[in-house]
Amino acid sequence: MADPVSRAAAVGAPLSRFPVAARSELPGDLQDRFAEVEERAGFLPNVFAAMAWRPEEARAFFDLHDVLMDKETLGLSRAERELIVVATSGANDCLYCVVAHGAIARIRTRDPYLADQVAVDWRKAPLPPRMKAVLEVAVRLAVSPAEVTAEQLHALEEHGLSRDDIWDVGAIVALFAMSNRLAHWAAIRPNEEFYTLGRLPRP
Amino acid sequence: MADPVSRAAAVGAPLSRFPVAARSELPGDLQDRFAEVEERAGFLPNVFAAMAWRPEEARAFFDLHDVLMDKETLGLSRAERELIVVATSGANDCLYCVVAHGAIARIRTRDPYLADQVAVDWRKAPLPPRMKAVLEVAVRLAVSPAEVTAEQLHALEEHGLSRDDIWDVGAIVALFAMSNRLAHWAAIRPNEEFYTLGRLPRP
Amino acid sequence: MADPVSRAAAVGAPLSRFPVAARSELPGDLQDRFAEVEERAGFLPNVFAAMAWRPEEARAFFDLHDVLMDKETLGLSRAERELIVVATSGANDCLYCVVAHGAIARIRTRDPYLADQVAVDWRKAPLPPRMKAVLEVAVRLAVSPAEVTAEQLHALEEHGLSRDDIWDVGAIVALFAMSNRLAHWAAIRPNEEFYTLGRLPRP
Amino acid sequence: MADPVSRAAAVGAPLSRFPVAARSELPGDLQDRFAEVEERAGFLPNVFAAMAWRPEEARAFFDLHDVLMDKETLGLSRAERELIVVATSGANDCLYCVVAHGAIARIRTRDPYLADQVAVDWRKAPLPPRMKAVLEVAVRLAVSPAEVTAEQLHALEEHGLSRDDIWDVGAIVALFAMSNRLAHWAAIRPNEEFYTLGRLPRP
Amino acid sequence: MADPVSRAAAVGAPLSRFPVAARSELPGDLQDRFAEVEERAGFLPNVFAAMAWRPEEARAFFDLHDVLMDKETLGLSRAERELIVVATSGANDCLYCVVAHGAIARIRTRDPYLADQVAVDWRKAPLPPRMKAVLEVAVRLAVSPAEVTAEQLHALEEHGLSRDDIWDVGAIVALFAMSNRLAHWAAIRPNEEFYTLGRLPRP
Amino acid sequence: MADPVSRAAAVGAPLSRFPVAARSELPGDLQDRFAEVEERAGFLPNVFAAMAWRPEEARAFFDLHDVLMDKETLGLSRAERELIVVATSGANDCLYCVVAHGAIARIRTRDPYLADQVAVDWRKAPLPPRMKAVLEVAVRLAVSPAEVTAEQLHALEEHGLSRDDIWDVGAIVALFAMSNRLAHWAAIRPNEEFYTLGRLPRP
Repeated sequence: MADPVSRAAAVGAPLSRFPVAARSELPGDLQDRFAEVEERAGFLPNVFAAMAWRPEEARAFFDLHDVLMDKETLGLSRAERELIVVATSGANDCLYCVVAHGAIARIRTRDPYLADQVAVDWRKAPLPPRMKAVLEVAVRLAVSPAEVTAEQLHALEEHGLSRDDIWDVGAIVALFAMSNRLAHWAAIRPNEEFYTLGRLPRP
Repeated sequence: MADPVSRAAAVGAPLSRFPVAARSELPGDLQDRFAEVEERAGFLPNVFAAMAWRPEEARAFFDLHDVLMDKETLGLSRAERELIVVATSGANDCLYCVVAHGAIARIRTRDPYLADQVAVDWRKAPLPPRMKAVLEVAVRLAVSPAEVTAEQLHALEEHGLSRDDIWDVGAIVALFAMSNRLAHWAAIRPNEEFYTLGRLPRP
Repeated sequence: MADPVSRAAAVGAPLSRFPVAARSELPGDLQDRFAEVEERAGFLPNVFAAMAWRPEEARAFFDLHDVLMDKETLGLSRAERELIVVATSGANDCLYCVVAHGAIARIRTRDPYLADQVAVDWRKAPLPPRMKAVLEVAVRLAVSPAEVTAEQLHALEEHGLSRDDIWDVGAIVALFAMSNRLAHWAAIRPNEEFYTLGRLPRP
Repeated sequence: MADPVSRAAAVGAPLSRFPVAARSELPGDLQDRFAEVEERAGFLPNVFAAMAWRPEEARAFFDLHDVLMDKETLGLSRAERELIVVATSGANDCLYCVVAHGAIARIRTRDPYLADQVAVDWRKAPLPPRMKAVLEVAVRLAVSPAEVTAEQLHALEEHGLSRDDIWDVGAIVALFAMSNRLAHWAAIRPNEEFYTLGRLPRP
Repeated sequence: MADPVSRAAAVGAPLSRFPVAARSELPGDLQDRFAEVEERAGFLPNVFAAMAWRPEEARAFFDLHDVLMDKETLGLSRAERELIVVATSGANDCLYCVVAHGAIARIRTRDPYLADQVAVDWRKAPLPPRMKAVLEVAVRLAVSPAEVTAEQLHALEEHGLSRDDIWDVGAIVALFAMSNRLAHWAAIRPNEEFYTLGRLPRP
Repeated sequence: MADPVSRAAAVGAPLSRFPVAARSELPGDLQDRFAEVEERAGFLPNVFAAMAWRPEEARAFFDLHDVLMDKETLGLSRAERELIVVATSGANDCLYCVVAHGAIARIRTRDPYLADQVAVDWRKAPLPPRMKAVLEVAVRLAVSPAEVTAEQLHALEEHGLSRDDIWDVGAIVALFAMSNRLAHWAAIRPNEEFYTLGRLPRP
């Protein structure tokens, strides 16, 4: 019987340098989780397929993702969290994360241009000073982590981020420091759907 | 009643820039997990205390850690996994991970000098060619992830690492790319015990 | 009377940090040139509008562009020339050139994904060894020009590039080293049309 | 009959890795232009010989050069324009441009030491604050173009540069980003005359 | 008769990539100097053994060391001088200097943790603002010497350093720029004693 | 009474950011040494004046210089030693050493162009493979000392350098790592004489 993950892997370039587990062989909770994501998105993002051969790691990785990214606070919206991912993944030259989270950012910001602007050159992107400040320290943590200072964290408070929001900024950057490296290591290929999602301006 | 985590936080410099949850308020599974670690190590490593205010993140983070680090294969021993952590954390200037995992590496390698050698200058450390090859690509993934190539991964096979071991190398580097950044962001202080653990040569 | 360039400049964010000349005030040859480009593309790319206040520089700049980019040889096609621009502009974080030449590259390669892949991480893009070799030395010339050696140029001959093609590789990189810096200096905004051009797979 | 370009190419190391066209075969306008430069300088700078095999590129390149460099404004003299070239070419390790434009800078500044000082370490060169500010942002555009901000451009206004002068700073840096890369790519050799021109203090 | 230097060299890994002179063959003044150091420290640091085959260089090198490091001023104590060595040697990944001067710093600061903290991440080490300011400019001189400015030197005066102290900061960094490179070139192995010296908290 | 050092310091820009001792107040051996250098060169190089206020450091520094630089071996001539200084000082953007040792290199190589070529871009300088190999590892030791490997040192043996010559390469680079940093720290100004010395081709 056809199985989405192995079907995807069979067409064209492989989606990972490592084995792609058949979904029918995954633990039940991951099968359910994958099915839910697939239903919501319309397709299963390749990072799920690429992580599936390591169920324990996959479970922990997606738990971390969901608790940090599916969260809306006064100081840091879902859309803004995606932009942090896009900016730092751009700094790490990570195709999977730039393309996949660029698509999600286009949808969440309802802006068809902003994600590309942030991925290539966040400094000139049309963002308010608060987000410029967030991205500046986020990219520094991604690229030169020892150069982040307590003063830079406090400065985010002055932009209205709560202590929880500030932790989230660091934790999101840290999570995608991991994610970018897994994607580079396994050469995870973005799904073709991500390239076009959210590119048309909302009427 | 005195509670180890909050006691630690009350003495001297804070162990994190963020709140340290009282252990008595943690979910039961984390209380048990912390107790078990504390019993084995003789003290609770500060990273547990620092992550505790975010139980879901803590749970996933320590799950990832345990599945990747508490694992002994023919191609990659527990001691060698610690050396990967030490080398890449050194490249990221991460005090917590260099000191804490340096201590664990001293214990697991039964060598009181090797961890410091690997942390400061892995290239000249007295290691066999296989571990030199592992650390070279590991540090590259940590510092310049886009420059890792398929050829470099294949070269590890020639040194006897299995496909699973090679994934583990990348996953460990990725996990500590996250861990190093959390430790920098929160300025997590290493426990004083780590500085001296395993420093005396085995008789 | 409405004038396309000034109209574009009047809506939303400015397309340049510097003045945008009214097209009706340009020298005749530039008016003709702009009209021809606009007719072919369906819109006037903002770099024309941004350069227009300096007619002599604009003329020389577009002459250089056309002689190097509108050229098809056995060793270096129009599409491949665009990919050189995309890879090196990605290395320079130049939004205008990544977005505008990414669009042209999508059209010329008839591939809706390749330009993004090359812009973010050319090393893993699905390209033949010849183009990998071209992009490797092209990005080196863009980023670390003193490190290019005669041996690296000769290696391109072994991949079938003629002496003229090799000059063209260097001259294209050099031209966009200039172009990327003009676009950064003036903060030239890409036309919105470029973001979506060529994104649908050819039937 | 002897032809200066081919004569130069025949003696000692080649002046370029690419063919050097005989001047007698150049288009008439380039022959005139080369003759004029040669008459003024006393010799033909090798960059003319090296570009000659590509007449269209040569024409556009020298047009750009002349319109930006042969220009004296209140805010940016000819001598100061040369110092921008020298500082950024030094940052790019470009021998041809450091030596040739160093010579021109010695002549235009009437200072036998300043060009070397700017080429090696512009920060400590004996320059007024205005030129220090110009060179700081010029070298940043040359080396890290994405890090140039609107505030840095505005700061040049406070040093008395007009909007036109500020464009010129960026355009000169951009032109020599191209020129440095062409010189590296073709390994263009500086004429020996440049090394000594203007080295004696004016009486 | 057994000779300490050659005995050390005969056991385990060599202490240098270059010949290690027998102490009995050294000039008398160096024999005396080595004996004095050995008596004070309890062992002869390997850098003495490694430099011994070049007596004139050794003499000058140790003279420079002693005049700069065995000096206590109001503005810069012996302990603080060692911390400058540790921070800049950490930035240069120099195992010998990090381990040997880390040990001396532990003894002179009477702090078993501070040297490791400074070696790995001086920015977060528990130091007063004066030492943070000293280490910031010291590490800059070590890593990016052209970026040190007169203003940065003057700032040290405001922290209470005299003109002599400020010279000493620069001279110490410069001396260990040399020392780090000699240790890398010869792969000088730290004595095992250094790893544990001063690690126990003073009662 | 007129005193060369203080006279030099009194005219124009200071030769150092630190005090310049009157020569009449120096210890006798340094007075003799300075007089001898001055007689041979025709003027006193400013580095002597700048170091003079610290007689012990000056003595050791010039001893190190003389023992390493005034030495001619089959594998490494005086001229070649100067080229090592020029290449690494160029990499460190050190004006004093580039200008002063560039002059000495012009004299010792009897080539009026080579020193500038090596200072700006040693890779393309007209040097035999042996010197290219020497400069490659020398510049690596200067800029990225941890990346020097035993294999790279052995490769110099294959180019005919003796073990002593190889040590000298490293020791010269190390000495000028110190010298470049002292010159940056004190902003030591090169004597004007150095700029023109040896610039005329030998008849």
